[in-house]
Amino acid sequence: MLEEKQVQWMDQHMKVCPINNSFRIIGKKFTMLILRNMMHRGQMRFNQFLEIEDINAKVLSARLKEMEKDGLITREVFHETPVRIEYILTEKGRALEPILDQMAAFSMKYCAKDVFKDGKVRKFEQVYGCTHP
Amino acid sequence: MLEEKQVQWMDQHMKVCPINNSFRIIGKKFTMLILRNMMHRGQMRFNQFLEIEDINAKVLSARLKEMEKDGLITREVFHETPVRIEYILTEKGRALEPILDQMAAFSMKYCAKDVFKDGKVRKFEQVYGCTHP
Repeated sequence: MLEEKQVQWMDQHMKVCPINNSFRIIGKKFTMLILRNMMHRGQMRFNQFLEIEDINAKVLSARLKEMEKDGLITREVFHETPVRIEYILTEKGRALEPILDQMAAFSMKYCAKDVFKDGKVRKFEQVYGCTHP
Repeated sequence: MLEEKQVQWMDQHMKVCPINNSFRIIGKKFTMLILRNMMHRGQMRFNQFLEIEDINAKVLSARLKEMEKDGLITREVFHETPVRIEYILTEKGRALEPILDQMAAFSMKYCAKDVFKDGKVRKFEQVYGCTHP
């Protein structure tokens, strides 16, 4: 619960709600899944996203462009034959990881029947293990 | 980054991605804003949501019904005249707070120019203060 003086401070000092602002950046299904894949696998090529997610090339292209504009990823071109293009998370993009981690932790605890085949509750650390901070 | 054996474990034991599952539950703009308001203010009446957010009654009603079905809120009827109906967060609903907190923290650090009138980076604790855990 917020106190009245906190709400007043926010009204005075904020232009937009920070939760709403984050939702604008990551509140699209495939943006979230692209981020998840990049966090799990590091840099990725366009076709690798298509292989993993049920997304078409047009939507993927649109999401990647938005993410580049929002500063979450950079597009790196390697001048090989054929040209290789990799998408890489920026520091800002990687900073979204705690949000995704909390989302994973929530469903593993409160929606275990939907998430796990055996329906048992698990902690985040049990599944994502020691390679995640 | 995930190791191959972690990915294999997930393929074997998971029915759906827990991040995706959480997104299904909270990945709608007004669901997120309804949750935020309830976390800030505690229980709320239907008309109070309409006063705070730019949402119409039809959409609000649909979102509240989904949230009730997902076990995030309960609807409590007080038999007064006129009848008073309050929406209250369940334990599961309150458990979404760390996700929203991380979303707020992200934008206050990485999008300070969009969020704050003075454009200065702030920490979560500086804004939401000691009443949040």
